[in-house]
Amino acid sequence: MDHVREGDRIVVRLDPGEEALDSLGELRDEYDIENGFLTGIGAVDRVTLGHYDTEAQEYSEEEFTGQFEVTSFLGNVGPDKIHTHIQVADDSFQSLGGHCSGARVSGTFEVIVTLGETPLTHHLDDRTGLDVFDI
Amino acid sequence: MDHVREGDRIVVRLDPGEEALDSLGELRDEYDIENGFLTGIGAVDRVTLGHYDTEAQEYSEEEFTGQFEVTSFLGNVGPDKIHTHIQVADDSFQSLGGHCSGARVSGTFEVIVTLGETPLTHHLDDRTGLDVFDI
Amino acid sequence: MDHVREGDRIVVRLDPGEEALDSLGELRDEYDIENGFLTGIGAVDRVTLGHYDTEAQEYSEEEFTGQFEVTSFLGNVGPDKIHTHIQVADDSFQSLGGHCSGARVSGTFEVIVTLGETPLTHHLDDRTGLDVFDI
Repeated sequence: MDHVREGDRIVVRLDPGEEALDSLGELRDEYDIENGFLTGIGAVDRVTLGHYDTEAQEYSEEEFTGQFEVTSFLGNVGPDKIHTHIQVADDSFQSLGGHCSGARVSGTFEVIVTLGETPLTHHLDDRTGLDVFDI
Repeated sequence: MDHVREGDRIVVRLDPGEEALDSLGELRDEYDIENGFLTGIGAVDRVTLGHYDTEAQEYSEEEFTGQFEVTSFLGNVGPDKIHTHIQVADDSFQSLGGHCSGARVSGTFEVIVTLGETPLTHHLDDRTGLDVFDI
Repeated sequence: MDHVREGDRIVVRLDPGEEALDSLGELRDEYDIENGFLTGIGAVDRVTLGHYDTEAQEYSEEEFTGQFEVTSFLGNVGPDKIHTHIQVADDSFQSLGGHCSGARVSGTFEVIVTLGETPLTHHLDDRTGLDVFDI
């Protein structure tokens, strides 16, 4: 990972073999990020997609390996949670997507993090069993 | 819906049962937003996807119900139109996408709106039958 | 293409028949953009999707014609490269995605470019055969 900060944003390059969420966790620690929004594109060779059934309050996930382009990586960074969703495409340009529980960089991964001020802490929403923004 | 404004951006949390576009309309009214760009992720249990055939100038839409992760929600807010596209994934991580005509929040929905200055009003483009940015 | 610049961002409307990457190249030249991040939505009637196999170091691409909504268009602008990924949906709301090698606007295409300072030049990563951010 290399990165450069300019004012309220950080440009990040993740490198082959890195787990995107782990690297973003390191970035959060280095800059004490309490509020960040991110967008990214890249390529991964392993991705763990999650799905939450709000009605049943059941979470499931599945790991996919292969050569994937990441067409969208969107989410946010709070002091207690990094929350991202991801959309990937295989070599037939077919799509898979979901909550991102893991994404191992293959080619490169380019992320821009835009920083805000209000700490994006979370609280449990009893109705859904989810941690949501405490704003 | 809860939200917090910091300078030129607003962090928004939409809550279960809310229609995303209606809530964003309320947000627009509250802050008199004339120019906003938004990105978001979340979960919905009903989504209405639209498709416009520019050649035939025909619009079609379809409603889908189920437990969906929203992998990308992108668009903009003008005084006369909120224009968003959405990509969702089901419990098999399969994808559906299109113009967003409706999205009912199930779990949570996290949106960041970045505000600009030039009012994003629209005019009709006769060539396509679409309302487009009047810039 | 019409556009309006406000401080560190440019709002862009691309018009029917325009190639999105070519138009963004003209925009880059006009404003000497060395660092920009972009998000967009729109509609295209021809899109060329690319896929890179990092392991085999082989790039493949395929052209698709039809009436597509663009559900996400994300990427960045450097002095030596405009790098974007795209996700499109057909009239059945089915998805295709990948690296964007070409996208011809059909309806409209709305892009916001946020400008930064550090020139996003690239260098070759020998491990993958890819040009990556030189930051």
